[in-house]
Amino acid sequence: MSATAAEGFGRRAAALLRSAANDLKRDDENAERDLGLEPGTFADHTSGKRPVDWALLRRAAEVWPLNERDLLPVHDDCPAGLSVLRAAESLAGSRVLARGGEGYYEYRDTAMSRIASYRPEWIRMLRVVEDNSADNPRVQWNRGHLLYQFTYFVGPVNYYYRWGDTSYCVPMETGDSVWGLPFAPHSFTARTDSEPAYILALTYGGGLVGDAQRELAVLGRRPAHDLALPVAGSPSSLPGLIRSFMAARCVTPAEIADRTGLAADRLTELCSPGATATETELALLAEALGVSVRDLLAPRSTSHHGVSIQHGRDARSWDYPGKDDPAYRFTQLAGDPLHPHTTALQVDVRATTASDDARLVTHQHQYLYVLGDAPVEVAWEHDGQRRTDVLEPGDSAYIEPLVPVTFSATGDALPRLLLLRIAGAVTPEVRHALGSMAQGGIDRYIAEDRLWYSKEGN
Amino acid sequence: MSATAAEGFGRRAAALLRSAANDLKRDDENAERDLGLEPGTFADHTSGKRPVDWALLRRAAEVWPLNERDLLPVHDDCPAGLSVLRAAESLAGSRVLARGGEGYYEYRDTAMSRIASYRPEWIRMLRVVEDNSADNPRVQWNRGHLLYQFTYFVGPVNYYYRWGDTSYCVPMETGDSVWGLPFAPHSFTARTDSEPAYILALTYGGGLVGDAQRELAVLGRRPAHDLALPVAGSPSSLPGLIRSFMAARCVTPAEIADRTGLAADRLTELCSPGATATETELALLAEALGVSVRDLLAPRSTSHHGVSIQHGRDARSWDYPGKDDPAYRFTQLAGDPLHPHTTALQVDVRATTASDDARLVTHQHQYLYVLGDAPVEVAWEHDGQRRTDVLEPGDSAYIEPLVPVTFSATGDALPRLLLLRIAGAVTPEVRHALGSMAQGGIDRYIAEDRLWYSKEGN
Repeated sequence: MSATAAEGFGRRAAALLRSAANDLKRDDENAERDLGLEPGTFADHTSGKRPVDWALLRRAAEVWPLNERDLLPVHDDCPAGLSVLRAAESLAGSRVLARGGEGYYEYRDTAMSRIASYRPEWIRMLRVVEDNSADNPRVQWNRGHLLYQFTYFVGPVNYYYRWGDTSYCVPMETGDSVWGLPFAPHSFTARTDSEPAYILALTYGGGLVGDAQRELAVLGRRPAHDLALPVAGSPSSLPGLIRSFMAARCVTPAEIADRTGLAADRLTELCSPGATATETELALLAEALGVSVRDLLAPRSTSHHGVSIQHGRDARSWDYPGKDDPAYRFTQLAGDPLHPHTTALQVDVRATTASDDARLVTHQHQYLYVLGDAPVEVAWEHDGQRRTDVLEPGDSAYIEPLVPVTFSATGDALPRLLLLRIAGAVTPEVRHALGSMAQGGIDRYIAEDRLWYSKEGN
Repeated sequence: MSATAAEGFGRRAAALLRSAANDLKRDDENAERDLGLEPGTFADHTSGKRPVDWALLRRAAEVWPLNERDLLPVHDDCPAGLSVLRAAESLAGSRVLARGGEGYYEYRDTAMSRIASYRPEWIRMLRVVEDNSADNPRVQWNRGHLLYQFTYFVGPVNYYYRWGDTSYCVPMETGDSVWGLPFAPHSFTARTDSEPAYILALTYGGGLVGDAQRELAVLGRRPAHDLALPVAGSPSSLPGLIRSFMAARCVTPAEIADRTGLAADRLTELCSPGATATETELALLAEALGVSVRDLLAPRSTSHHGVSIQHGRDARSWDYPGKDDPAYRFTQLAGDPLHPHTTALQVDVRATTASDDARLVTHQHQYLYVLGDAPVEVAWEHDGQRRTDVLEPGDSAYIEPLVPVTFSATGDALPRLLLLRIAGAVTPEVRHALGSMAQGGIDRYIAEDRLWYSKEGN
């Protein structure tokens, strides 16, 4: 960790300590007494003059109703807004994982950041099979894993997946992709060793890692199972949500009938499996329950048996920003509306200079990998500074949300990129909360710098 | 921390370490090499045989692209599913905070837990005013604070709030309540010192504390401001969401027109301030953007100038579970659809025994405070065990999500409770993700106990 990075981490820890004390309505004197600090020193800790060290975190987590992690910030390992991992660095971390004593995969890490939940691996298939049977005994299945997995295929790769008791095998080619749900067992093999056969296995945790996992780990198995909600299309999706909000509000059917004007019979129907509601009924229910219509609508999923497969041959492509002299041709890869903030694209770069209307900006985190044989020039802006870099084939990069980025070819060869964009912890709910805060709130939210009141008074 | 609590914390830390190594596709040998551990010892750390200590966390955060906090669980300080703070304990922590050298408030902590974001305080007003003017110079304003605040009023309390440049004063009475947005300055005084004047200031962080705050603290001020989204009713709420998803998908208006069949002109309208869409258009757009209709709908807010005020005299009340021989009479207190999972209720307990149809179960965290003069018997179930306790006036409690709870009177005097339910980190998105996981996934998600593959092979 550089001195600058350490300084930033320390400053964020200091702000969290002040924020936590404010939340607990502890002024400096109270905080010093609680934490066993010398009088007059708490402000030093919250200003960064003295460190917030592990001993202080432990003490705070003992005497205050919070956890050590509540006072810990994250590291900023991407101070320029974009960070690159070179192909050679990926190669240096190469490791072969064996199954039953024989090498099965070669893994290489690609670009990751402490700010985002990406765990993207380049993986080469070492096992060659002679058929496309899901039951081939030479196929070594894994046990599934927590992370969502977006996979891009290069070469003659067989993809195996299992859902419930049934196993499937799909022969894949370059440009095919798949998006898969957590904990479903899967495997990959090569159909020949005469050409490259590898995948970009871009796993990510999304909303599953972090605070939610911590909370459920304490609540335990039974509550975790009971909290599961079905996606749209399940007979219980609408009635489940209505019943859940009715329980949350402690309201009776009679009370809801009274508030909505809906007949008791109709309300019983709406709370029964298979129910669907009209737009008007949804609005009445949302009003009566004190929620928004969106809260009564379950997300939809297009995955089938746990996966969404997108073959390159059927994939939708379009020019950007328009048909005339486009900067890019995008091809849509596998995804699922269950993750509305995940976007997977193959980017064929046509531009030879970085023009303004080719700038791409998104609220999502971004990961890119240089496919094909051509290098790409990447231009981006961060903290008011414009920067460029050239990424060679096999290089990968992480880009922070809202960093404008432009891609262009460096010569005649046209670059091809793989782009995976994902949501971070700043959910739509948080974004609407930011939009609702009182003036000056956002700045204090991300870096609290003051006691919540003035000791001197008005 | 008890030995049992420490053991649970250690076990959860061990599971997180295994889960993190799995995410990074490190088997035991790779993890040992990365972390500088003796061969054969990583499994001891992930099984709880050896501790996951601070040195190990620091080392992991250095060599792996993660943060110390990513490996830290939270403490379980509520092993029985419900924990009580007695009035005497609240009183023991009493502290007076002064403004300009004079005592202004007396604070007492009430029940809190490391599992939930509640920071509920009992606060007595020490400043007595002679008028209801928002400009009374004897009113000492705070600077606002991060946490959302639900406030329940007892006695002749004046409530002051400021939004933008305008200050307001609302004289409150027992049973009145208000819900307020973060960082808006506010204050409270008493109109007389001849009777009790206090509030229950139930602050909570909701989605604002935790991972999102950490991420935004790194991204910085400009991105945090740019990520803010308006609530429903703002001219930019629908077009803002459509444009945001179009940017996320890198799609052009022509491409969306092609996918939806909507005319180019109509699409331009939908992306312009003030746009509203029909149900059919929303469905087409959701399909074309690969999202769900819910993702295109902004939440609504009923707060005005940053607050939602609910006077007791206008509050809605109803009997539960029905009009005949009800166990409770609920009165709805202040809230806002912006927080659909927050419920504030005054509970007048009528039941004298705990009957099954009076059991209350919710996905929310719960906080309760005993108002009035009558004690209440609380019965609950946790881990298959039924427990009871008697809470006296001024006692408060925290209750875990999904713990069934029943209230009843202990004698002739009928108890009155204040109940505040809030969301935790397990958002609807996470609940739908739980509902979509492969078989056996939920148990491993909350406590990963294995390598993601078998070394021996199938």
